[in-house]
Amino acid sequence: GLCQKMVGPHVEVAAAVKANAYGAGIDMVAPALFDQGCRFFFVASYEEGKQLRGILPDSQICRIAVLNGLEIDREEDYDFHSLIPVLNTPKALERWLLYSKRTRPYLKCILHVDTGMSRLGLSLEEANNLIPDIKHYTKELDIEYVMSHFACADEKDHPLNQKQKNDFEKISEHFIFSKLSLANSSGLFRDPSNHYDLVRPGMCLYGLNPLPEQDNPMEPVVKLDVPALQIRKVYQGESAGYGASWGAPKDMVLATVQLGYADGFLRSLSNNGALYWQGHKCPIVGRVSMDLTIISLENVPEKDLPVEGSLFEVIGPNQSADDLANQAGTIGYEILTSLGNRYERRYI
Amino acid sequence: GLCQKMVGPHVEVAAAVKANAYGAGIDMVAPALFDQGCRFFFVASYEEGKQLRGILPDSQICRIAVLNGLEIDREEDYDFHSLIPVLNTPKALERWLLYSKRTRPYLKCILHVDTGMSRLGLSLEEANNLIPDIKHYTKELDIEYVMSHFACADEKDHPLNQKQKNDFEKISEHFIFSKLSLANSSGLFRDPSNHYDLVRPGMCLYGLNPLPEQDNPMEPVVKLDVPALQIRKVYQGESAGYGASWGAPKDMVLATVQLGYADGFLRSLSNNGALYWQGHKCPIVGRVSMDLTIISLENVPEKDLPVEGSLFEVIGPNQSADDLANQAGTIGYEILTSLGNRYERRYI
Repeated sequence: GLCQKMVGPHVEVAAAVKANAYGAGIDMVAPALFDQGCRFFFVASYEEGKQLRGILPDSQICRIAVLNGLEIDREEDYDFHSLIPVLNTPKALERWLLYSKRTRPYLKCILHVDTGMSRLGLSLEEANNLIPDIKHYTKELDIEYVMSHFACADEKDHPLNQKQKNDFEKISEHFIFSKLSLANSSGLFRDPSNHYDLVRPGMCLYGLNPLPEQDNPMEPVVKLDVPALQIRKVYQGESAGYGASWGAPKDMVLATVQLGYADGFLRSLSNNGALYWQGHKCPIVGRVSMDLTIISLENVPEKDLPVEGSLFEVIGPNQSADDLANQAGTIGYEILTSLGNRYERRYI
Repeated sequence: GLCQKMVGPHVEVAAAVKANAYGAGIDMVAPALFDQGCRFFFVASYEEGKQLRGILPDSQICRIAVLNGLEIDREEDYDFHSLIPVLNTPKALERWLLYSKRTRPYLKCILHVDTGMSRLGLSLEEANNLIPDIKHYTKELDIEYVMSHFACADEKDHPLNQKQKNDFEKISEHFIFSKLSLANSSGLFRDPSNHYDLVRPGMCLYGLNPLPEQDNPMEPVVKLDVPALQIRKVYQGESAGYGASWGAPKDMVLATVQLGYADGFLRSLSNNGALYWQGHKCPIVGRVSMDLTIISLENVPEKDLPVEGSLFEVIGPNQSADDLANQAGTIGYEILTSLGNRYERRYI
């Protein structure tokens, strides 16, 4: 929706749905994106691609690209499920070429050139080495896109952004048969000159803020509430949780909620961060344990105290995934992807 | 095995298998424990109990207790699946009593008295209030065990340990029809006087060290290797990963492995911690990303360099889950439970 508006009608929007759609649940997210018109999806691995092919409507109308590349000895499997490999190394390019020669010409692929992540993709040197011989590849393969990936697009003025763009434009000049793709969510929102032919938003689809220096342009899409198992009094000086790392400064009321690090609620939130009850902030006290977290009801007026079964907000109107990430010393992505399987999910 | 030897023939050993058997996989772990003679299991929630009932051999020989208590309006479901509720509040005790009256007498349950966690369980005050009226309950219910839970058993000389034990013994004197249970893994290994009638080890079953001040008495049971997707050169001054948080101090060789925080590889390991390749330590460079981690091969002799597809050790002979936890600023439990679903699991 908003992403397509941002880029206009001539740029395609592909959705990054790797890691179980950033933890949101690929089985529900992918069909919802399809219904909104999305026809191009990026996953991390062959397994994810195969799974997504089973989830999307049974048609070849949807393209699925595999970012982690062409897994060894899997050429036929990619072909069978119509998965487009992102070719990250000269060897992978060679393997896809050989497979194309053995089967049929113009198999699609995406060539990934690294411009500053040092993670996946051909180095500029490797990409340059291909150029004299480029017809060797393009007469057999359809290198549909040349892509690269921003390392610091979330940081407005990071010098690497412009350097990556310059290097990307310079190398891609030589791939005259290919379209171009560079931008993730932040790159997309940051500057229209990042859009080229295809953008690949991920985080913003799940409500995270692609431009951290300003207000979030996206609507929140994930909400998580957890039930209280017990409401209890503690007296001044009593401790709570493993290691007795917290002591009650006065007589207080605590709640124990069904949420722990095994649910992906990071243990670094111990004695840090909060949940919310009807808008009241309930600080986490003591260590987050495997299945349970203890919170203080010190800010809840006595007449409004919750009861066993009351639902506390973990992510919602009072606290975004990005807020919780700040408390945990990480980023909203890790919060979303670590949310576990023990929750009952409802999609609205 | 070792746990039963530690406690002798007169103390029963129950296995804590909550949170998908601490991330190890309940579907494989529970039958293996059953084969070793285990007949008593502790889970966190009703859902976990129901799932475990479907995994264990179809017989009433196995007892399953639910630590998070008797969920509201679920009495019949617990009964149907023969799940023993751990009763954490006077209200839950009352509800189980009512259900017993409506159906049949002597339904089993475990009464949890809190002695220092301030998390779940009756407060000492609430437990004391029951005592004058205890026959009201014991003529209808089989309170098979009174239990409590150590907060600091991993810390050898923590004063709370003795205080919890004293309080536990004092209150349980009044429950003359019930057996007693206090010890988790650390409590079990720490002191035979903690054993009472039933011990409830968890972490040590999965190879974590219950006595952190000395060598681990348990054999490691979890091993995790991940493949390299790419081996690449970087030149001095080039950066790696998001935010360009790492720069190469010299020309180097890096590997990118298929492992990220969406797999439960905590992002706090960014620029911190290491994987191993044939015994060589390979430090993590740059930020751990969602699906990928970059490591330096600076300690690998050039003639031994790995190739695409080579497997790197995440947990194994060179690095335990506890070691990795130390690097990540957390505990082995969080490392194990956060290990995701994207790995191919092999049980040996």
